[in-house]
Amino acid sequence: MGPESAHKNALTENFKVDYVVLYRFANAVDKTEATQQFKNLIRALTDVGLQTEVRPGTDSSLLIFVKAQDKYLGKSIYRSRVKDWLHGVRNTQPDPDAKGSCVPETDAERLLMVYKMITLPVNEGGAGITPKHGEWNHVDSLFPLHDKQLNKEWIKSWSSKTFLSTDDLDQIRNHHGEKVGFYFAFLQSYFSFLVFPAAFGFSCWVLLGRFSMIYAVVNCLSCVVFSEMWKRQEGDLRIRWQVKNVSQIRTKRREFKYQSRYTDPVTGEEVQFFPAAKRLARQLLQIPFAVLAILALGTLIATCFAIEIFISEVYAGPFKSYLVFIPTVLLSLFVPTISAVLTNIANRLTDYENYETQDSYDVALTHKIFVLNFITSYLPVFLTAFVYVPFGRIIVPYLDTFHLTVSPFVSEKDQAQKTAVAFQINPSRLRKQVIYFAVTAQIVNQGLELALPYVKRKLFRKYQEYSEEKARKSGTSTPNTSPVLEDAPGEADFLTRVRDEAHLSEYDVGSDFREMCVQFGYLSLFSVVWPLVPLSFLLNNWIELRSDFVKICVECRRPTPFRSDTIGSWVQSIEFLAWLGSITNAALVYMFSNDGVGPDGSPAHITGWVLLAVIFFAEHLYLLVRLGVQVAISKIETPATRHERAQRYLVRKEYFDATLAREKQDAEADADTENKQSHGGRTSMSSVPDTHEMPRGEVEANITRASLEEDARVFSQHDASPADLFWNRQRGRTESVIVGEGIIEAELSMKQSPAEKKAQ
Amino acid sequence: MGPESAHKNALTENFKVDYVVLYRFANAVDKTEATQQFKNLIRALTDVGLQTEVRPGTDSSLLIFVKAQDKYLGKSIYRSRVKDWLHGVRNTQPDPDAKGSCVPETDAERLLMVYKMITLPVNEGGAGITPKHGEWNHVDSLFPLHDKQLNKEWIKSWSSKTFLSTDDLDQIRNHHGEKVGFYFAFLQSYFSFLVFPAAFGFSCWVLLGRFSMIYAVVNCLSCVVFSEMWKRQEGDLRIRWQVKNVSQIRTKRREFKYQSRYTDPVTGEEVQFFPAAKRLARQLLQIPFAVLAILALGTLIATCFAIEIFISEVYAGPFKSYLVFIPTVLLSLFVPTISAVLTNIANRLTDYENYETQDSYDVALTHKIFVLNFITSYLPVFLTAFVYVPFGRIIVPYLDTFHLTVSPFVSEKDQAQKTAVAFQINPSRLRKQVIYFAVTAQIVNQGLELALPYVKRKLFRKYQEYSEEKARKSGTSTPNTSPVLEDAPGEADFLTRVRDEAHLSEYDVGSDFREMCVQFGYLSLFSVVWPLVPLSFLLNNWIELRSDFVKICVECRRPTPFRSDTIGSWVQSIEFLAWLGSITNAALVYMFSNDGVGPDGSPAHITGWVLLAVIFFAEHLYLLVRLGVQVAISKIETPATRHERAQRYLVRKEYFDATLAREKQDAEADADTENKQSHGGRTSMSSVPDTHEMPRGEVEANITRASLEEDARVFSQHDASPADLFWNRQRGRTESVIVGEGIIEAELSMKQSPAEKKAQ
Repeated sequence: MGPESAHKNALTENFKVDYVVLYRFANAVDKTEATQQFKNLIRALTDVGLQTEVRPGTDSSLLIFVKAQDKYLGKSIYRSRVKDWLHGVRNTQPDPDAKGSCVPETDAERLLMVYKMITLPVNEGGAGITPKHGEWNHVDSLFPLHDKQLNKEWIKSWSSKTFLSTDDLDQIRNHHGEKVGFYFAFLQSYFSFLVFPAAFGFSCWVLLGRFSMIYAVVNCLSCVVFSEMWKRQEGDLRIRWQVKNVSQIRTKRREFKYQSRYTDPVTGEEVQFFPAAKRLARQLLQIPFAVLAILALGTLIATCFAIEIFISEVYAGPFKSYLVFIPTVLLSLFVPTISAVLTNIANRLTDYENYETQDSYDVALTHKIFVLNFITSYLPVFLTAFVYVPFGRIIVPYLDTFHLTVSPFVSEKDQAQKTAVAFQINPSRLRKQVIYFAVTAQIVNQGLELALPYVKRKLFRKYQEYSEEKARKSGTSTPNTSPVLEDAPGEADFLTRVRDEAHLSEYDVGSDFREMCVQFGYLSLFSVVWPLVPLSFLLNNWIELRSDFVKICVECRRPTPFRSDTIGSWVQSIEFLAWLGSITNAALVYMFSNDGVGPDGSPAHITGWVLLAVIFFAEHLYLLVRLGVQVAISKIETPATRHERAQRYLVRKEYFDATLAREKQDAEADADTENKQSHGGRTSMSSVPDTHEMPRGEVEANITRASLEEDARVFSQHDASPADLFWNRQRGRTESVIVGEGIIEAELSMKQSPAEKKAQ
Repeated sequence: MGPESAHKNALTENFKVDYVVLYRFANAVDKTEATQQFKNLIRALTDVGLQTEVRPGTDSSLLIFVKAQDKYLGKSIYRSRVKDWLHGVRNTQPDPDAKGSCVPETDAERLLMVYKMITLPVNEGGAGITPKHGEWNHVDSLFPLHDKQLNKEWIKSWSSKTFLSTDDLDQIRNHHGEKVGFYFAFLQSYFSFLVFPAAFGFSCWVLLGRFSMIYAVVNCLSCVVFSEMWKRQEGDLRIRWQVKNVSQIRTKRREFKYQSRYTDPVTGEEVQFFPAAKRLARQLLQIPFAVLAILALGTLIATCFAIEIFISEVYAGPFKSYLVFIPTVLLSLFVPTISAVLTNIANRLTDYENYETQDSYDVALTHKIFVLNFITSYLPVFLTAFVYVPFGRIIVPYLDTFHLTVSPFVSEKDQAQKTAVAFQINPSRLRKQVIYFAVTAQIVNQGLELALPYVKRKLFRKYQEYSEEKARKSGTSTPNTSPVLEDAPGEADFLTRVRDEAHLSEYDVGSDFREMCVQFGYLSLFSVVWPLVPLSFLLNNWIELRSDFVKICVECRRPTPFRSDTIGSWVQSIEFLAWLGSITNAALVYMFSNDGVGPDGSPAHITGWVLLAVIFFAEHLYLLVRLGVQVAISKIETPATRHERAQRYLVRKEYFDATLAREKQDAEADADTENKQSHGGRTSMSSVPDTHEMPRGEVEANITRASLEEDARVFSQHDASPADLFWNRQRGRTESVIVGEGIIEAELSMKQSPAEKKAQ
């Protein structure tokens, strides 16, 4: 490759760099400390077989480029595959001599392996580097570099496609690992599923109007089918991507604090022990946390809701048009604040629960975040549907505690007249709210996710350029243009790109899952209010899938391609939302049947026991249907499971054939030695009687009851046990057959004899 | 052992017989056919390495005694253990050279292995004998012999114990196999669990009276704890008895009918295929079956219930004291009849569903039987609690359609007066019914299970003796005393015993499970009506455990010790009953709160929506608590799971150590060859740069930016790729360190310079 093409590819070329370690010494105590830790870092990296190159970063940092040497990488891969095999991730034992078992199969595998070489504890063969932790407090982070060329191609190709193919998903997995792969597979699967509810919802919207029972039933059914189908698909992908049981290979969290240590008597391994009961006790703190969250967020939302209703529907004083915005302002100010505080508490709580593995930590945190999201996302709609509409007429008049409706501009007489007829439930409020969450909020969200970081990034770069310019102008006299800080000509573009990537934030797949999960909740819980919800989501998710990919490629550092065998506890959240959907759908359809509300603005004829009976019936029908769907889906064999089964069968067959071959050999060897040795006679007691058919002319010829008895008597003289006596009465197949035939003949002749007698 | 002790042990000695094959030729076409199949049978048995002895049976049958030869048995055991290992039942690969891997560990293992040798298809290494099927239609059955001595000892030792120890359960498992072992473990676990509800129930009965909310809550809670604890214990036993994943080793049912066959392209194995969709369609027939069962049994029970109420509480005509028994008679006549018909339909339906394995067949049948049992057992109580009591006053008057209360003996005036006040709900009916099912029915059941078969057996033997006597008297002339039919003196007692055992019925562990499951249902659903229910069950089950064991030992043939890794779908039934219990308990407590009923005999103040809200709340609270209990229990590590984990760890460690040792060897070998070869110089491009710290005095001494750049320039002349250029700037750890230190120094000095300037 000549220097020309090198220059051409400068913007996409990664110089074979596997990882970049960002070493930030800005907050170092002094030069010696910074240098010492840096030296240790380089030593640790090179000791495990990683090659390093150091370049200056921005803001007092070093960029340490890391590349794994093939030999050491190969060893790591082989060792990791053996581990996989022992944990049941791979079906076949890797062959140490085969070439393939030391070469990474995918880009992601190589990167993950290098990541493990850097981060695994020293006793497990890694360099033991944990960013921002203990002795590595100056190590800011480690990240692989984006493959700009590939990303560009993908974004281009996807923007002209409606559905991603399995091949596309495999590509993502090969490049970004299974964790990200599972997210896109889920998103793709959810998107494909939405086509049906979108089409059906649109027809319902045209033909049946809102609150149609048919739509509600179909919606619940399709939600349960989706959640079950996804679980199935997840299992398939697990096999396809060879990550089954990966979650069982657990690496300890560095933050885990043991209570006591002991040496396991069986394994001789040192165990760091933290009592499960103690953790369970700590987990119980989740209950007050949930209560706190409900109280804090619930009170806020309910208050704003009340204020809004009061101002928009009761209040008749001055400045109404401005006051209407008060609740929105309050919500926008306080919900993020309180959420942030609660999220912080959730983080601390999860830290306090002291999980041993990252997986269990993530699950625990996900559960808490889900509770927060549930409250902020769905509570407003719940309040409208199940408090405002049915009880509005009773509650709302109490809102006017300060008698603000008695404004000085209205005469008292008018006023009295007004309050009497004043309050009317606004029947379109529920629909408007659902439309807001299903359309407006989604668009706003997209904007926040894509446009805001873009603007932020641009502004930051502007500011950086400006400050650099300023520094250059003011500091021309200081010797800051040390030659060691200058970039070599061939690398300048590349290093600028890496420094940019170092400034990006880390990608968190969890927040993307959360977004989709919340969206699914609107679909399953409230889409009966406005059947166009799924259509809106369908359109949104087409963009979402692409914009999330852009986010990974452009706005975030390239994530470490972690493995995973599931999308985690989000499946449970989705199942829960689908279940809850069966209740809300039933309730909404019953309450708002007859297309909405009665003449006075509140739903007509709601009877408590009928409502509850409807809910009870719907919920149990849902559970029954879910059971049926589960059974039905479990019966279907997909190509992946069939392949898996065949694979396992082959492994078994191989071992088994080996066993049989061995047995055969043994048998032949036995036969040989037996032939060489002399045969034991009839009277040899110790050897097991031979049952193989052998030419025993003399026995077959004249065997009788008497001769057998004679044998037995001879036998009994040998002081034989009763069992030996019993088993030596008939020796060999032939004798048994003769005795048996004798008995059959005797019995049958005996039976026939009376009949024959009569016949005679 | 001398002949004396042989005689002494005649009643308990089994002559080392493994299995008895009962060959019945009574219905053979002719002598030739009977003889031919018999010959085939002996040939098939001896071909797989089984020794045979033939003796006459009763009623035109042969007793073929079978004993496995150690060599062949050893091979079977080894092969089976390899199979176990491949399916994950055993953690370690059996060593073909170790002595223990060819010797049965338990009595049960030996018997099961012999059973497999007899019954497995020929291509899997068995004799392929399926009793009463196809070419083996005269083979009536095969069964092992009871160990009379051991059984006696156990029954004796258990009758003086309250709880069976784990050791006792292990003994049962070693002797009767895991399937029976699991039943007794379950029974024992259920019995121990009952101690708490019994004690609590008794206190409630004394202190709180019936329909206590506290009792209901504690009852539901303890039921859910029991069902979850049992699942946990099942898992433990699975590990302890080494039967984990046993259900995955599937042997095809002989009755399975394939639709098409094809050769699997991957495995090359012939697959018998039956489409899952077709089976699913057939399984849908379960819905009309359930409807039919509910209609048939429900109508019958409801009718009898109505008649009973009418006669006992409305009717005032003549013969009342006799007529009262009509419904009981009707029920006793028709419930068993209809149940038998429905069970027959269930059997056929399950046959029609055409399952591939015995396990799935059993599960499907169990589900259907559970539906039938549910209706017959609980419907009467449901009718009383939820129809008779709340709606009795409305419904009952309609029962008097024939105006039978207008009896000719009563004047019309009296009559009119009577009907006006006539009907009063009988408040004790529900309690009486529950007491009947909890006490009377249990006692009756025990009687039917133990006493009836005993009497039957005695009578049958009497009849047999009588008819033999008669035959002997009438047929002294016929030559039926063929010498071949006479028993040898040493064996006579033994053979009599075997013939007796051949007459016994087969043990069905399913029916015992069903009984316990139905009992658990009464506890979870209705015990709030009469809190002494658990106490009654506790007493009953002490006897039940012993009587079931007596049943296995005395009244049934010894069962083949099948393996199993679970109690099957009964766990699901128990979970379902516990769940349903949360609903019934809530409903009963609400309806009958205030200790029963109102002044007019019907419960006072039942409001529909409150009732439903209570049920809704209770059910969801139950589900939440269940989730909590599940999580809590999953966190507890038992000795068995710890042991399992340690075992797995050891296996992994062994393999892993082997891998590491190998790597080390390789590395040493590499080092040797490397030392022998000449070292590559600094300019050698192809070899990966050495990162190990080596004495590089000349490099360390005077490395400068300039020298590095010089190197790079020299390098670029070699037409190197940009990546090579990049990675060759700093070669080895030392150079990286020097460059890094340079950057740190430059940056820090630059930073400090303005401050220093000011200080100056």
